[in-house]
Amino acid sequence: MTPTRRGFLQRIGAVGGYSAAYLSMQALGLLPVASRAEPVALQPGGGRGKRVVVLGAGIAGMTSAYELQKAGYQCTVLEARERAGGRNWTIRQGTRIDLIDGTSQTCGFDRGLYWNAGPARLPSQHQKVLAYCREFGVALEVEVNVSRSAMISNAAANGGRPIEMRQAINDTRGAVSELLSKALDRGALDQELTHEDRDRVLAFLEQYGDLSPDKLYRGSSRSGYARRPGAADDAGELHKPLSLNVLLDEDLWNGVLFEELIDQQATMFQPVGGMDAIPMAFAKRLGATIRYQSEVTQIRRDGDGVRITYTHRPSGTSRTVEADYCIVTLTSPVLAKIASDFSPAYRDAIANIEWQQSVKIAWQSRRFWEQQYNIYGGISWIKGFTNMVWYPSAGLFGDQGILLGAYTSGPNGEKLAALALNEQFETTRAVVERLHPGHGHELRRPMGIAWAKVPYSLGEAAHYRPGQVAEYRLLNEPDGPFHFAGDYLSKVGTWQESAITSAHRTIARLDEQRRATA
Amino acid sequence: MTPTRRGFLQRIGAVGGYSAAYLSMQALGLLPVASRAEPVALQPGGGRGKRVVVLGAGIAGMTSAYELQKAGYQCTVLEARERAGGRNWTIRQGTRIDLIDGTSQTCGFDRGLYWNAGPARLPSQHQKVLAYCREFGVALEVEVNVSRSAMISNAAANGGRPIEMRQAINDTRGAVSELLSKALDRGALDQELTHEDRDRVLAFLEQYGDLSPDKLYRGSSRSGYARRPGAADDAGELHKPLSLNVLLDEDLWNGVLFEELIDQQATMFQPVGGMDAIPMAFAKRLGATIRYQSEVTQIRRDGDGVRITYTHRPSGTSRTVEADYCIVTLTSPVLAKIASDFSPAYRDAIANIEWQQSVKIAWQSRRFWEQQYNIYGGISWIKGFTNMVWYPSAGLFGDQGILLGAYTSGPNGEKLAALALNEQFETTRAVVERLHPGHGHELRRPMGIAWAKVPYSLGEAAHYRPGQVAEYRLLNEPDGPFHFAGDYLSKVGTWQESAITSAHRTIARLDEQRRATA
Repeated sequence: MTPTRRGFLQRIGAVGGYSAAYLSMQALGLLPVASRAEPVALQPGGGRGKRVVVLGAGIAGMTSAYELQKAGYQCTVLEARERAGGRNWTIRQGTRIDLIDGTSQTCGFDRGLYWNAGPARLPSQHQKVLAYCREFGVALEVEVNVSRSAMISNAAANGGRPIEMRQAINDTRGAVSELLSKALDRGALDQELTHEDRDRVLAFLEQYGDLSPDKLYRGSSRSGYARRPGAADDAGELHKPLSLNVLLDEDLWNGVLFEELIDQQATMFQPVGGMDAIPMAFAKRLGATIRYQSEVTQIRRDGDGVRITYTHRPSGTSRTVEADYCIVTLTSPVLAKIASDFSPAYRDAIANIEWQQSVKIAWQSRRFWEQQYNIYGGISWIKGFTNMVWYPSAGLFGDQGILLGAYTSGPNGEKLAALALNEQFETTRAVVERLHPGHGHELRRPMGIAWAKVPYSLGEAAHYRPGQVAEYRLLNEPDGPFHFAGDYLSKVGTWQESAITSAHRTIARLDEQRRATA
Repeated sequence: MTPTRRGFLQRIGAVGGYSAAYLSMQALGLLPVASRAEPVALQPGGGRGKRVVVLGAGIAGMTSAYELQKAGYQCTVLEARERAGGRNWTIRQGTRIDLIDGTSQTCGFDRGLYWNAGPARLPSQHQKVLAYCREFGVALEVEVNVSRSAMISNAAANGGRPIEMRQAINDTRGAVSELLSKALDRGALDQELTHEDRDRVLAFLEQYGDLSPDKLYRGSSRSGYARRPGAADDAGELHKPLSLNVLLDEDLWNGVLFEELIDQQATMFQPVGGMDAIPMAFAKRLGATIRYQSEVTQIRRDGDGVRITYTHRPSGTSRTVEADYCIVTLTSPVLAKIASDFSPAYRDAIANIEWQQSVKIAWQSRRFWEQQYNIYGGISWIKGFTNMVWYPSAGLFGDQGILLGAYTSGPNGEKLAALALNEQFETTRAVVERLHPGHGHELRRPMGIAWAKVPYSLGEAAHYRPGQVAEYRLLNEPDGPFHFAGDYLSKVGTWQESAITSAHRTIARLDEQRRATA
């Protein structure tokens, strides 16, 4: 920044305070956007004397209650499960997965090993959830989302042999660069490019694709070695480059480009010891505000306020909570089954929003992927309905680890979930065997989850049909005293950040509503 | 793997043992190459009664002594410094950097902060160094080599505004995909591609470049947001795409493609607490085998063996070690200054191998790059002679961290090293200010190193001139009882892995020599 410019900014800062200077710098293009979360701005103490009942102690529900209590509201959170967190669920030795199809699994992992069956990563751009981790002292570590030693594998391509990610990425770039170089040489883009620009692009492509001086792609050390270099005269042996045809046959671009999805980009994090450190931190602060094992059975209006009836599961007794407002964070498939006084349009919207299936299968195993394959974290991508094999970022270099054998959502998730558990397990074992021949037998103690079969969730994520915006918009407006919140009501996607973003907006509007009617 | 194939391999395994099965699987393309290091195979106990003097307690020297001792050799390591590690040097509170230009700096970092002034990362493919970390119990953590929130910055391009890496990478891919799509549509590659193939490539490019249906690149969420999406109807605002011309102007492809360099690819590691955990682990095991503060002054032949004279620095006295063999791991600029009985060709080779300068400048600072920029680890790339700003992977989310303000080798390193220390510091502060306006003043307690000015190193890395292979080959052969080892004698590059690779080869040949003359 030039001294003049800095002087200008300092003057603005002196007059308008930090925010003015900040916004000016942003306007000048000098600052990146949106680092650190904006603090939630409810009127301090404004909620005193007002009661809010929150349905669901997932991330959206707990965020709502935690922030509303800070502003003086008196909150009650009703949670059907014995635990907080909702879809944020970490499976460890002794954890039981009971699905609505009647299956029951008890986790037999070694002590210290865990599996995040729900959310399992935190993008560094998700400043709201990171801010809570900071506030609560939740320790984070790097989640390795990408390994160049991971693989893509399509049984119908390349003779069934998996391809290292470094080769898929760099041979593709080489092939594309070679094709474009040829086309430029032939003058195919002389309409668009001056000769000078064309030469600049040609020079760039040589570097971009690691082309030979004759502008052909003949392989690159970026794509790795069949034999790595050694001492003295041992220069090693490069992988033979794969043709673009083979790479197109693999048809796994979603995997190759995964690291470029905005919410999957480096740097990614995970809480040390399991993702449930986040809900546990919320729950600790909320204490008795959360009533566990409290299954909501009726959602009623009561004058201007609400009356919620629930079953206290251990005793089987029916109980009631009355409040001025209700924040509803249950998933729509769960909500649709509960008797309610929602307006008809809201009931229809809730009934119309479908939630998708998602199956994940986890295995305990010796870390052969590290010890024999140099794969430390990251994902191998599979053509077929199991989609991926995801290597753990936790406990690297340990002896045993938890390997995710499948993470399959949508229609393929439905197909996988329709199989018997043991068939699901063996399907993923076969996939791991294809990627890592001779190691399938090392997988043990599998655990499977199918989120649409998990009681009190009944789905992984809302799946809006194309054009289905009316329902989304409606639920983002309050229905009298009923306010909705959840990851499915934000544009952030299916993330904890989304649940928090939605909760923050919803409580701000609830607070406005209170002020307007006060 | 089909049952038949597995049966076949099990039969091979039964007959030929694990190795035979392994090699067959490799031949069938079923196994990745070169995971885990081959163990060093010296004849067990074969060295008994033989003495080896090793010059230099860097990684090559200590690896040599450690392995030779296992095989029964009696070793002495002469080290001029007070510490082991050579160029592997971690700077902490109180560390003094004395350079041969007479400057002296004492590190004032807060306790717990450190800076790896030499090697600072371990690729997961470097199995030999990882094997020693395993053997010695050196704890490793992920080194974040790449952050999509880091930036590229060329003062002469894009109005001087830095560009987020996510945008540089993905707008480039978009522009390349658009150009190639156009060229294909015009039939520019109909010689090479059938119509069917062309259509396949077109469909792929749409996904690869995130093109619009009209095959134009109009920006992509991969390139990030000017304003991130929020709750309800807030879809955020994408970055406006940068034209290929701007990206070409930036001229920072080395930075954009850095993550694809084979030895920089994810997953990367660093020892917890500092890279010197590795030499400290070696040194602990070698104990009194290493004589510190012992500066070699003469390298002589003595019959079939060697006689090394050194100055014991604390006392200033001259001492001697006699041995059957000598392993020389000193850098050639250091070696060239020592009187020796090397054959003339070796002396010439040593004199002819130049070592390059490399300057690194480190600062302590509040972690504004994390708190204001969402940058956690990774590197921003600078056009200009300071080259890069490297963000720490250690102590993420802490308050203070060590930022590398420059890492500049070769001719630019020479230029930077020629400046007064304070000018070097302010040059890098200005670069940080350009990337992170308003934060340059937060940088404090700078420390600078110029490796060609570090006593007993006098360079960062050998820089062979094009065609200079004779010297390399010669030093990879013993000169009578003198055997050479070091990172500069392997094809692995300037890495600790290279030093180990060279040492392993050298001691294996020394062991062979001993057997041949026994």
